[in-house]
Amino acid sequence: MATDFRRKEILPDITEQIVTSYHELGTINHLGHCPLPSYSEVIAILTDLSEILYPGYRRRQNLHFGNVTYHVGDLLDTLHDRLTQQIARALRHELTTQTQVTCESYVERDFESDAQVITIEFLRTIPELRSKLAKDVQAAYDGDPAAGSLDEIIFSYPGLEAITNHRIAHELYRRKVPFIPRMISEYSHSRTGIDIHPGATIGHSFFIDHGTGVVIGETCEIHPYVKIYQGVTLGALSFPKDGEGNIIRGSKRHPTIGEGVVIYANATILGGDTVVGAHSVIGASVSLTKSIPPNTIVTIEKPSLKFREAS
Amino acid sequence: MATDFRRKEILPDITEQIVTSYHELGTINHLGHCPLPSYSEVIAILTDLSEILYPGYRRRQNLHFGNVTYHVGDLLDTLHDRLTQQIARALRHELTTQTQVTCESYVERDFESDAQVITIEFLRTIPELRSKLAKDVQAAYDGDPAAGSLDEIIFSYPGLEAITNHRIAHELYRRKVPFIPRMISEYSHSRTGIDIHPGATIGHSFFIDHGTGVVIGETCEIHPYVKIYQGVTLGALSFPKDGEGNIIRGSKRHPTIGEGVVIYANATILGGDTVVGAHSVIGASVSLTKSIPPNTIVTIEKPSLKFREAS
Amino acid sequence: MATDFRRKEILPDITEQIVTSYHELGTINHLGHCPLPSYSEVIAILTDLSEILYPGYRRRQNLHFGNVTYHVGDLLDTLHDRLTQQIARALRHELTTQTQVTCESYVERDFESDAQVITIEFLRTIPELRSKLAKDVQAAYDGDPAAGSLDEIIFSYPGLEAITNHRIAHELYRRKVPFIPRMISEYSHSRTGIDIHPGATIGHSFFIDHGTGVVIGETCEIHPYVKIYQGVTLGALSFPKDGEGNIIRGSKRHPTIGEGVVIYANATILGGDTVVGAHSVIGASVSLTKSIPPNTIVTIEKPSLKFREAS
Repeated sequence: MATDFRRKEILPDITEQIVTSYHELGTINHLGHCPLPSYSEVIAILTDLSEILYPGYRRRQNLHFGNVTYHVGDLLDTLHDRLTQQIARALRHELTTQTQVTCESYVERDFESDAQVITIEFLRTIPELRSKLAKDVQAAYDGDPAAGSLDEIIFSYPGLEAITNHRIAHELYRRKVPFIPRMISEYSHSRTGIDIHPGATIGHSFFIDHGTGVVIGETCEIHPYVKIYQGVTLGALSFPKDGEGNIIRGSKRHPTIGEGVVIYANATILGGDTVVGAHSVIGASVSLTKSIPPNTIVTIEKPSLKFREAS
Repeated sequence: MATDFRRKEILPDITEQIVTSYHELGTINHLGHCPLPSYSEVIAILTDLSEILYPGYRRRQNLHFGNVTYHVGDLLDTLHDRLTQQIARALRHELTTQTQVTCESYVERDFESDAQVITIEFLRTIPELRSKLAKDVQAAYDGDPAAGSLDEIIFSYPGLEAITNHRIAHELYRRKVPFIPRMISEYSHSRTGIDIHPGATIGHSFFIDHGTGVVIGETCEIHPYVKIYQGVTLGALSFPKDGEGNIIRGSKRHPTIGEGVVIYANATILGGDTVVGAHSVIGASVSLTKSIPPNTIVTIEKPSLKFREAS
Repeated sequence: MATDFRRKEILPDITEQIVTSYHELGTINHLGHCPLPSYSEVIAILTDLSEILYPGYRRRQNLHFGNVTYHVGDLLDTLHDRLTQQIARALRHELTTQTQVTCESYVERDFESDAQVITIEFLRTIPELRSKLAKDVQAAYDGDPAAGSLDEIIFSYPGLEAITNHRIAHELYRRKVPFIPRMISEYSHSRTGIDIHPGATIGHSFFIDHGTGVVIGETCEIHPYVKIYQGVTLGALSFPKDGEGNIIRGSKRHPTIGEGVVIYANATILGGDTVVGAHSVIGASVSLTKSIPPNTIVTIEKPSLKFREAS
């Protein structure tokens, strides 16, 4: 039993045909361009950031106030270099793509320097991020009777992982870093089933319970103390198009959710002009495309059930 | 093109601010405490357990009845040591958290010994676990016309992965091991999209088809031969609160599902007093908050559809 | 604090009981059989295929038209050998399972040779696969206002990852390779929340947005230019059974979707005779079990909402 080596003589032909398809289908190659941001490097950076945001929980054991400064200082130094490099690649790639020129044409622009400025601005926000995340952890504890302790939430809650990744991605998105925010959000989506576009603006003390199937669109505005259950969509009603039928990118297409709102499982709230007033409660499976005032409870008239005996 | 080293002089300041935030926001640090259970170690233990439960399918090839005793004996020996260590950490951490004392205060209590007793009790249940899981595999084959063989199910069905992980987590939960059961269940949730709280009690011959979006709450009771489809929620109706408005933890909040019940996609069954009688069938998208008798078929009066021609 | 070594003396007994359960519960062992296809090897092959389909995006940087032939030629050579080996294992395992004979009984059949023929046929389809996938990428860009560029889609869209994995799995499924197609599809399901059976036939320019919770059944037929949102099920209405009550495997159980159809979030379309006519639009949460003509917009009569003030 063995493979037939004469059959393998076809492989150079197949290689040739594949390479020909690279010439013909240029849109899905990345050949002869500048280095792209590396997916695995971006995920490694995200993991290091988590280590700084929640010190002592995952990788490094035995941290205490006597050694944590060295640990964080060291992590921060390498993070600075790695994040700068990835952001520089993203900036360079975006510009060469938009202008259809080669990588080398931009020798005069110092992408590394621009990237470094963004990186340092981003690293400065870490204490503020921690302050928001501490409130998210507390919101999860207050909102879930199955939560045994704050530690259990930090260890294992997918909702907390999703909001942590989102808050990082959003800070980069706000600073107009291309590609990387979406790489982070889709990594997070893959791990948690929660799909938050990096553009969404989310206030502190945010809690998503269970979470699988949640979709939060790019131009959502979510005020503090909001709680969301699995399967909730905060989406677009329809896409405005220009005179030639192309989708217009960038307008506000997703809803605004007021402070203290609770949205139960599988509810759908659509549209850029839709505002859910503060402290309102949206029942399970409600589908909403218009604004509602504050302090309103919205439920659906449930479809009647039919009962019959099994034969 | 290079980063500017003078800009990096700000990094010690940022480090300082981050460490200050560790002092101020003590809730999301783990500094100066006893070692926590390690997430990666818990997942490695879970993988070894899978190897024992379904020998020969994944990691180790060429097992036969002449060598399997050595293989399992060896795995079991290291599993014993590693699981004992992780459970000991979980027990110690929970006690120091609850009592707000330092790690060292508990020199008099032998957490390792307590952990070892639990570990051995747990390992003893493996044959019984296998017996239940063999019935789960058969239930998947009987319930899914797309299943080509039992092997295909063991190789690749997320529903089987979810119930395997759950049965392991539940055995630890029953023995009051803190943290670790939830680490296992959320790892499983992340991989399968199926969210089963480790507290849920689930009888043999259980099958979840497709599975993404399924949520099964902590105090659910599911009898044997139950079949569930994607998007089904077995959840809480509302949370009872004490006089001060705090959620009461621990009461029965989730439904009881009788023997042989089938629950179709996206159905929602809520409430601790809700009992679905044996051999009943719950139709897709049904939302149920009251008990139903045995042998009942429940469907929704479907919302009428509107048809119009596309312009 | 230490574990008690005398307690460990029970471990050989537990090992014995576990091995006994291997004898008693033969269905969930793989002992004394031929080597199975390896899950980790199949995933590694899938990753290499992705590298060939979208060169330069992930692993290998700095590819250009001067070196890409060597890179692809080299990858293809090892892919040929590895895929041949895995397919041979799958073929051998299936036959020994069906015929209940030992691995060695089949010395006369050259599984490697059969596997090699399939492998080469499969590798020949790569240029055509790329052509379809380039259209899928374009469909994603045209259909999603949040997409900034084609590169962003290739980097990070779970819908593209799902259809890429599906198109690979489907080519192997069409050639009757056992086990491996389903291993690929469930790996993809785990990463994206999108569950596409490898048997489903899907035309070019297919786009799934968000995607979590999508289920596409084995005998679906999807024509070109179809767009699907999160939570959509294209499923079976009921399973036809034979005279003895066993499920009949293999009949067309899932719907046909015409060219240019759009299916919004959480819609459900069931049944093997159900045909959605070309260019129709299926609204969110619609549940359809009958055919509809082309150019039809179907929406649900939404359940009325009840509003009351929060107390």
